[in-house]
Amino acid sequence: MSVRNLDELFLHELKDVLDAERQITKALPKMIKAAENEDLQAGFEEHLSVTEEQIGRLETIFKTLDKAARGKHCHGMEGLLKEGDEMIKEEDPGPVLDAAMIAAAQKVEHYEIAAYGTLVEYAKLLGMDDAVELLQTTLAEEKETDEKLSEIASEINLVAQTQGAE
Amino acid sequence: MSVRNLDELFLHELKDVLDAERQITKALPKMIKAAENEDLQAGFEEHLSVTEEQIGRLETIFKTLDKAARGKHCHGMEGLLKEGDEMIKEEDPGPVLDAAMIAAAQKVEHYEIAAYGTLVEYAKLLGMDDAVELLQTTLAEEKETDEKLSEIASEINLVAQTQGAE
Repeated sequence: MSVRNLDELFLHELKDVLDAERQITKALPKMIKAAENEDLQAGFEEHLSVTEEQIGRLETIFKTLDKAARGKHCHGMEGLLKEGDEMIKEEDPGPVLDAAMIAAAQKVEHYEIAAYGTLVEYAKLLGMDDAVELLQTTLAEEKETDEKLSEIASEINLVAQTQGAE
Repeated sequence: MSVRNLDELFLHELKDVLDAERQITKALPKMIKAAENEDLQAGFEEHLSVTEEQIGRLETIFKTLDKAARGKHCHGMEGLLKEGDEMIKEEDPGPVLDAAMIAAAQKVEHYEIAAYGTLVEYAKLLGMDDAVELLQTTLAEEKETDEKLSEIASEINLVAQTQGAE
């Protein structure tokens, strides 16, 4: 790999986030299965279909650039998902695991908020107006997902705390 | 590991972020050395001393809990830092590497924003008022660092783009 200019850095970051999104689509089914709370389960299910749309937007940008939509292994997302996966393997389903999965999912969302935030700025400088619009749509969705997770968390954390007091 | 209630989940997340912060203190000197832009170099240097203070705050919370300040290996942070490290090894210093390091650093900041955001909510529910205050101070610092990095990026990305046009 050699990244000599902003065009190449944009492509590098695009490949990174494409791989990250694809990793997420593989992790979400396990999280859906492990979730006890119905709102959380529905939230993860909705996020899976949103992630698939987001991958579609990235593929459109690769097409515009006349490049194959090939990801570059994203170590950051691998590590983030590993944390959630360990929890699922080690803990029984219930409000504490649900709370832990939300904490892990919010780290994933924040990864994407940072990644798409950077991509939007690069695309603006490179004058790629269509890409800016697609990336901004995804960025807004990631922020919305993070807020929804916070809302669900406020309910689940309370239950998790009550469980501890029993 | 078994996490049965919110107290234990709080401790688990606290150990995770302590390890994450310690990993950051090891990564920052390499980033300082690799940075070409003086504002970025100064920003990373300041962040190193802020991170040391943040570790001190976490150690205070461990003391309140009467627990040893032992981290638990944070796979998420390991992956995030690996991305930046690969860039430093493979690219020559200059505006493009500086821009790439900012992108990596903002992912790190967002990890911490998510982690401290969660810890603040847990500490509130657990009635740990002193911990809430310490964690909120750090959360505000992480958001401030992220904004500062965006400001420096807007300058460096422009130079990186000009370089590409040459």
